[in-house]
Amino acid sequence: MKKSIGAKTYLCPTPVLVIGTFNTERKANLMTVAWGGICCTKPPCVAISLRKATYTYENITDRKAFTVNIPSEEYTREIDYIGLVSGRDTDKFEDCNFTAVASDIVDAPYIAEFPMILECKLLHTLEIGLHTQFIGEIMDIKADESVLDEKERIATELLKPISFSPSDRNYFKIGEKIGRAFIIGKEIKQ
Amino acid sequence: MKKSIGAKTYLCPTPVLVIGTFNTERKANLMTVAWGGICCTKPPCVAISLRKATYTYENITDRKAFTVNIPSEEYTREIDYIGLVSGRDTDKFEDCNFTAVASDIVDAPYIAEFPMILECKLLHTLEIGLHTQFIGEIMDIKADESVLDEKERIATELLKPISFSPSDRNYFKIGEKIGRAFIIGKEIKQ
Repeated sequence: MKKSIGAKTYLCPTPVLVIGTFNTERKANLMTVAWGGICCTKPPCVAISLRKATYTYENITDRKAFTVNIPSEEYTREIDYIGLVSGRDTDKFEDCNFTAVASDIVDAPYIAEFPMILECKLLHTLEIGLHTQFIGEIMDIKADESVLDEKERIATELLKPISFSPSDRNYFKIGEKIGRAFIIGKEIKQ
Repeated sequence: MKKSIGAKTYLCPTPVLVIGTFNTERKANLMTVAWGGICCTKPPCVAISLRKATYTYENITDRKAFTVNIPSEEYTREIDYIGLVSGRDTDKFEDCNFTAVASDIVDAPYIAEFPMILECKLLHTLEIGLHTQFIGEIMDIKADESVLDEKERIATELLKPISFSPSDRNYFKIGEKIGRAFIIGKEIKQ
């Protein structure tokens, strides 16, 4: 028997994305978002949603660019901290001992210590309600060699990304492999 | 040293969402998407992206509604199958031995066997490129009692959702809990 939970923003898993932006003086800032995901294959695009009141909103509107920094498990404390404070009040790169690197492709900084970075150019802005959705075209992905497998693909087991659960408000590791996509379903019907 | 991977649609983790829709004759169909995520808190909204060529695109455009069905691990084979075939050629509910239940709130069916369902009313349609993004307002969430904790919240450990990795094309379980969101970051700076 299913129970009605109400109109809530629950989805499992949601990603944990740290958004890197420059302000008008080219000062680097960071923000953690869980409202986001890939939204188009051609052009390759990622959508992120954030409130108008945030410092990052101003920065993206101004610089038309952002990076999406994918943390590994070891940075869970840091990404939580980044979501708790505003870049108007503190330097989050400094607080977390992170190194800001200016992207050579888009007008935004990324976190040197994070294993995987999406460099994005602003393509669309959609005002939905409390949140504004920014759609960025992914211009390049940069990854640490340590998270690449023998075929030079980013391997989840090496990346060790974090997942967030909005219903119970916890962070989780990604667990064991279940199976190969576009393969295991073929067993259902020939 | 970071390596350039190119402009790809990699994000970890991405969710595995099964979209339920009715066609013009109220025949129920299913489609698996990984391009999606929550995109607004007020109103509570979820975004899903799919290609214009799909049967589900027609159905959403026509009925202005869809459900987002969150699978548990045990249905990995089924959700992969649902992504491999078109509802124009086969009845996916029948193939998977799933029961279609008409939502009492929106004009779309959901999978009785899945533990968590979002019932959505179409709010925005955004043509991005190969993919079209549909933004649905979440009108209600329905969940099996078996995935609720003692506070009546959906518990990830009980839900056992699946995560998809677009870079290595594998499905993964959600692993162990790392820590509490909006709490563990406070250790960084007082």
